[in-house]
Amino acid sequence: MSLPAEFRSDNAAPAHPVVLDALAAANEGSAGAYGNDPWTRRAEAWFRDQFGGQVESYLVWNGTGANVSALRAMTRPWEAVICSDQAHIHVDECGAPELLSGCKLLDLPSADAKLTVEQVRAAALKGVGFEHHVQPRVLSLTQTTEYGTAYSVDELGALVAEAHGHGLLVHVDGARIANAAASLEVSLRELITDTGVDALSFGLTKNGAIGAEAVVLLNPALAPQFKYVRKQSTQLASKMRFLAAQVVALAEHDLWLDNARQANAMAQRLAAGLTAAGVNVTQHVQANAVFALMEPALIARLQEQFHFYEWDETRHEVRLMCSWATEAADVDALVGSV
Amino acid sequence: MSLPAEFRSDNAAPAHPVVLDALAAANEGSAGAYGNDPWTRRAEAWFRDQFGGQVESYLVWNGTGANVSALRAMTRPWEAVICSDQAHIHVDECGAPELLSGCKLLDLPSADAKLTVEQVRAAALKGVGFEHHVQPRVLSLTQTTEYGTAYSVDELGALVAEAHGHGLLVHVDGARIANAAASLEVSLRELITDTGVDALSFGLTKNGAIGAEAVVLLNPALAPQFKYVRKQSTQLASKMRFLAAQVVALAEHDLWLDNARQANAMAQRLAAGLTAAGVNVTQHVQANAVFALMEPALIARLQEQFHFYEWDETRHEVRLMCSWATEAADVDALVGSV
Amino acid sequence: MSLPAEFRSDNAAPAHPVVLDALAAANEGSAGAYGNDPWTRRAEAWFRDQFGGQVESYLVWNGTGANVSALRAMTRPWEAVICSDQAHIHVDECGAPELLSGCKLLDLPSADAKLTVEQVRAAALKGVGFEHHVQPRVLSLTQTTEYGTAYSVDELGALVAEAHGHGLLVHVDGARIANAAASLEVSLRELITDTGVDALSFGLTKNGAIGAEAVVLLNPALAPQFKYVRKQSTQLASKMRFLAAQVVALAEHDLWLDNARQANAMAQRLAAGLTAAGVNVTQHVQANAVFALMEPALIARLQEQFHFYEWDETRHEVRLMCSWATEAADVDALVGSV
Amino acid sequence: MSLPAEFRSDNAAPAHPVVLDALAAANEGSAGAYGNDPWTRRAEAWFRDQFGGQVESYLVWNGTGANVSALRAMTRPWEAVICSDQAHIHVDECGAPELLSGCKLLDLPSADAKLTVEQVRAAALKGVGFEHHVQPRVLSLTQTTEYGTAYSVDELGALVAEAHGHGLLVHVDGARIANAAASLEVSLRELITDTGVDALSFGLTKNGAIGAEAVVLLNPALAPQFKYVRKQSTQLASKMRFLAAQVVALAEHDLWLDNARQANAMAQRLAAGLTAAGVNVTQHVQANAVFALMEPALIARLQEQFHFYEWDETRHEVRLMCSWATEAADVDALVGSV
Repeated sequence: MSLPAEFRSDNAAPAHPVVLDALAAANEGSAGAYGNDPWTRRAEAWFRDQFGGQVESYLVWNGTGANVSALRAMTRPWEAVICSDQAHIHVDECGAPELLSGCKLLDLPSADAKLTVEQVRAAALKGVGFEHHVQPRVLSLTQTTEYGTAYSVDELGALVAEAHGHGLLVHVDGARIANAAASLEVSLRELITDTGVDALSFGLTKNGAIGAEAVVLLNPALAPQFKYVRKQSTQLASKMRFLAAQVVALAEHDLWLDNARQANAMAQRLAAGLTAAGVNVTQHVQANAVFALMEPALIARLQEQFHFYEWDETRHEVRLMCSWATEAADVDALVGSV
Repeated sequence: MSLPAEFRSDNAAPAHPVVLDALAAANEGSAGAYGNDPWTRRAEAWFRDQFGGQVESYLVWNGTGANVSALRAMTRPWEAVICSDQAHIHVDECGAPELLSGCKLLDLPSADAKLTVEQVRAAALKGVGFEHHVQPRVLSLTQTTEYGTAYSVDELGALVAEAHGHGLLVHVDGARIANAAASLEVSLRELITDTGVDALSFGLTKNGAIGAEAVVLLNPALAPQFKYVRKQSTQLASKMRFLAAQVVALAEHDLWLDNARQANAMAQRLAAGLTAAGVNVTQHVQANAVFALMEPALIARLQEQFHFYEWDETRHEVRLMCSWATEAADVDALVGSV
Repeated sequence: MSLPAEFRSDNAAPAHPVVLDALAAANEGSAGAYGNDPWTRRAEAWFRDQFGGQVESYLVWNGTGANVSALRAMTRPWEAVICSDQAHIHVDECGAPELLSGCKLLDLPSADAKLTVEQVRAAALKGVGFEHHVQPRVLSLTQTTEYGTAYSVDELGALVAEAHGHGLLVHVDGARIANAAASLEVSLRELITDTGVDALSFGLTKNGAIGAEAVVLLNPALAPQFKYVRKQSTQLASKMRFLAAQVVALAEHDLWLDNARQANAMAQRLAAGLTAAGVNVTQHVQANAVFALMEPALIARLQEQFHFYEWDETRHEVRLMCSWATEAADVDALVGSV
Repeated sequence: MSLPAEFRSDNAAPAHPVVLDALAAANEGSAGAYGNDPWTRRAEAWFRDQFGGQVESYLVWNGTGANVSALRAMTRPWEAVICSDQAHIHVDECGAPELLSGCKLLDLPSADAKLTVEQVRAAALKGVGFEHHVQPRVLSLTQTTEYGTAYSVDELGALVAEAHGHGLLVHVDGARIANAAASLEVSLRELITDTGVDALSFGLTKNGAIGAEAVVLLNPALAPQFKYVRKQSTQLASKMRFLAAQVVALAEHDLWLDNARQANAMAQRLAAGLTAAGVNVTQHVQANAVFALMEPALIARLQEQFHFYEWDETRHEVRLMCSWATEAADVDALVGSV
């Protein structure tokens, strides 16, 4: 347990030591630049193994880069991306999706950061064929969501089916896709490939990397020009082996899954402890985040000992994020202080 | 000496072991995300120490990201960037500068990848005030250049003065700025701050990092909004300590300079050896690149033993890049084979 | 009265005959291209006379072009435009503002297409200084609104003051600014200059032109580079005298105001007649639009005789637009049919 | 003959009186907005009649709007447009093509503003498949060129064949396409459809309109989404009947061709007269422009009587543009003054 214990963000966590070891191990001799190296081949093989032999994967620096690249490959500038009003692409990327794709984001209200089939249907039908309106083209879903909730496999499948029925492609922002797979106890193939998702931003930074993500293209029509999209989006790494080595370190031997399970378990422990202490937990805890209402005095007192953010200052809702590095002692200390 | 010895690119070189050690050392406990960490503070302090107390520095992922972010901060979309026709921003970034900034690049012919004051003057005057033309706004120079040549301090100062005289800002693409400082035997302050450069892309990846660059803003008018530019350009790292740790590892104790000196020295050794062997070296060797004309049969034979590219297939000109990791034995082996 | 009478749009109306006469009169001999002509000088003089001597005006082709050019001059791509969720720029311009400016539009809910000071305050404060968020920079208001409502001079002044207090600029989409001046019985100077608006899209096409609009820049800081913005936004006319002649024809002798008064009066007559006939008129009628709820059978029967749109099919709300060319007989016929 | 006679630009000429009559005639009663009117149907029918039944045509405001819209429909942002270094899209559109399409223009040197098959071949092959380079996608040719020269039907066909052989699409900037058809004495179908051009910017403003152009899509793959491209490029006219009426006025009864013939004939008369007077005419006169070298003193003296531009001040080359409105007396007066 580090002091003060860390509940701000899974980005504040360190990398898993295995990742650092893998970086050092990859630092042997010269290697082809821009992905022409054996580590990148191994990472690609792992993605094919997990998602199916037809997928193409492209390593990128970070989550915004993954999302923007994926959306650019799926849209033309007069088209639109349907998303939740809590979506990271809408709220937290400083307009990068709009700038690079030219597209408008059509955000829909969502109390739990999840969209419903009915919402998607209405948005998908709006203004179609009418030249004054942007044309709906992509449904972007975050899994697990910005509120720590998760779409079930059935929910995700139904949303994809609805979107495809209207000619839309489906993108999943999987900055925390590992937490989803761990929470739902399903394979990546069941969760993503079998539900029909077209493109996935596969996140590893929050999961224990120092900085590495991937765009996984399930829909083969998106692949041929993706290398240009990645480069033009400033997301092509020259010494790519050091991205690939991180992926390989977390991917092989299921470290990614162990890390997600630990983070999820800590959030469950935290939510249970808070609830038992009478605190109002406001969202379903289906991943590594706990949202809760607390009195300002309590928040102030806790922040002397623990790092975390007041998410919504108008109603004194805090966000407590667990990571692969969160320990039971951290959680118990916080619950104890409450 | 690794086999086959590597002369393709300084991007094919490994990272310096000190960088890997620094990454491991930085992986202790939690740290604020997005640059709110002590490693980033140390990196910033180093840039101020080198360039002057007023500079602001922003860490980014890669060279294209640094260049694009810097140019976006310096331009509006109806303005233009004057550069060499060999400039990386013009030739090797897949249109990223144009897409993200909206600007046109005005490329000028340059046999040695260096621009002259006369060229800049003519370009700076063209179409000024005429609404049908893009308006010249930035002069972008690469130091050292894509051809391994270097602007002297006097040349750089004269170009900056000319540009400033026309109301232009000056950007330096310093993907190999360390090689320039080493080659010219001047401090970064003498080379960049004192010549009046407004913004610098400071490269460390080719110098021995696994992937880390910085935008150094000398002109304080560029700083206030730069954090938004970086984020919207997809170049904001969440676990930024791992970028900063690389910078600190290379920066402190002058490892960056030692690495550049080694690369430059190997290029000198190579050029001298090739010239002695009767090979026509086509560019001044002022950094870590050697360009040379070779018979196709010789190229083919050498490529069995050594990694390198034929740069211009029409005239059989090869590019041989040295890096911090190139050893005298590598060079001597190649020269011996010739 | 033309048959069927026209209530679809003020864009479906013909041009005023005086405009056609002016075009023919302007067609004498050669004239400088791109605005270097005496008609453009006269149009500019009229705008200075109406709005104040310091304003700069730029003629453009159409309303989307005016809005996009104005917003581009007021923003950088990481900034945002606050507007109503009914705003033309948000709903009816196929993403042109986003594509050309790079900016995100932050739309706020508004039952009558008007924003309140409280809404603007909350939006202006959101995410300021936080690099993950777009930065609020412009408040864009439509006057009269897309629902035929109008901001009073006091309302507009309060909104501008609130926006300026947060460092925001204010744009007014005045596609129907003439209807506002006529409805509120105020001068353009009182309505726009004295309330502190920074930039106005001044619409004339709906008012009786064949196609001519202007961007009026009240804030002198916006003017110096506007000519480049207009050209790069594809909105610079070569034979500009034919735009200017339309402006002059409508502007001088207050034809623009007479046209707006006629359109507004017809809407009042229509709303009164419908209300008397028991129809539920859903918005304040403060310009030339009437929104009303009607039974589907009534809508179907009326559409046999009259051109108009069902605005909201879910609640059977129709939009009936009057124009300068609408006659009392048209209105009375429609009311009679009801 | 107007005084001073006009040789600055075909944009300085008035509109043909028949166009003004057509505008007045179109101003009868209401009409559907945005092209839902009978004049637009007639214009479309004329384009099909001229180019073939499969073409789709879209009316736009101006030449830059036509070019930008056409190029946007043909490209993705990581692709490139090959053009002459004299091309209007490269030199005279203030970066609008780059801003709206995101694409880079690859300009090739051309003493007479015409490209050769060899140039196109080299440019089409450069960097293909290499993710660091923009990918060549469109060849854009101007017909007649910015220097008043024309591609023959054979030349144009060979360029199209070369481009298509590399998977490129071909755009023709036909701001003066009428002058080409008149000069070459071929039909539009022979010149454009039969040579295989994919998209044409069809210019009428310089030909005698007040302001009207069209994008003619020969390649049916470009049509389905073009209406969105036009709208998002700010080029959709609300009262489109007034664009269509201009097209119809010039198109039917071959007025467009008569106007072009007159302009071309005046340029021939002018070139012949100047040559006879010992003036060095520097470009082939194949349309309505004459370029000539003159002593500064002569230029100054002539400019007291005649409107024209010194095109290249370094070598004292003037440009003398004729239009449909240029009369023999204008030409003879200028030649006489020389």
